Amino acid sequence: MADLENFEVQIHRYERVLVAVDSDDFGSSRPAFEYACTMAKMFHLPLGIVSILETGDLNIFQTLSRDVLSNQRTAVAHLLETYVEKAKNFGVLEVAPYLSEGKPGRTIVDSIIPMFKPDLLVVGSERKNNPNDIGSQASYMVRYAPCSVIVVRS
Amino acid sequence: MADLENFEVQIHRYERVLVAVDSDDFGSSRPAFEYACTMAKMFHLPLGIVSILETGDLNIFQTLSRDVLSNQRTAVAHLLETYVEKAKNFGVLEVAPYLSEGKPGRTIVDSIIPMFKPDLLVVGSERKNNPNDIGSQASYMVRYAPCSVIVVRS
Repeated sequence: MADLENFEVQIHRYERVLVAVDSDDFGSSRPAFEYACTMAKMFHLPLGIVSILETGDLNIFQTLSRDVLSNQRTAVAHLLETYVEKAKNFGVLEVAPYLSEGKPGRTIVDSIIPMFKPDLLVVGSERKNNPNDIGSQASYMVRYAPCSVIVVRS
Repeated sequence: MADLENFEVQIHRYERVLVAVDSDDFGSSRPAFEYACTMAKMFHLPLGIVSILETGDLNIFQTLSRDVLSNQRTAVAHLLETYVEKAKNFGVLEVAPYLSEGKPGRTIVDSIIPMFKPDLLVVGSERKNNPNDIGSQASYMVRYAPCSVIVVRS
């Protein structure tokens, strides 16, 4: 209590924002992306945009097919490029795209965050199945990311 | 993909911010509180501050003792008052305190959010036991709150 009495509120702002966009779910990615762009533009922050090709989503035959995987990679790369353009047109000055493959939550926490070093991670909330389903990948990131995490619900 | 190509990024801002402060954990409450105050001041938003007396933390003998409970209530009420003062001194214009009893996560989701109607809930991340422990109450709120939730890590 003594700590509380004596402290003075300081401005709390983030320095680097990373937003995860889901190539299969524009509905939940959009508000998260817009929030991340708004913060990045307003506070002049570098914005990382990450999309993960969920190779776990492909079945064994698809994985074996080079064409399918290659098409998926091209599609996700194009999607990411589109998000980068949208962010720049909105007025974000510094945008860094990240593309990887695997389980999104784990890949972002283990590989992308150590590279981009955000202090705020922005994720959308999946509501495919029921309104309380924030999605297993979002849950994973909320739990294991070393930085603050905002789950954006629309 | 067509949806993505055609959309134009809109400003995404919140309108009402609710921050949960833990009477037992100033360390994790502080950065959450400072973030909430910063957003509320900067965007001229009403700020709700909620503290829950965790009656589940009292053992049966303590619960039966009116004095212990009464002292706890007084302490939490004073703590909340202190946070309200700090927010006002920092420059937040509209501050609404909420005090209740029970399990924090459930009480905030079931009782406080329907009253204050925030579109952003700010919670701290407990790290009492290990760095990945965001706390069961924070987890509950991330999952069940009907609004966006930010877990602030310091």
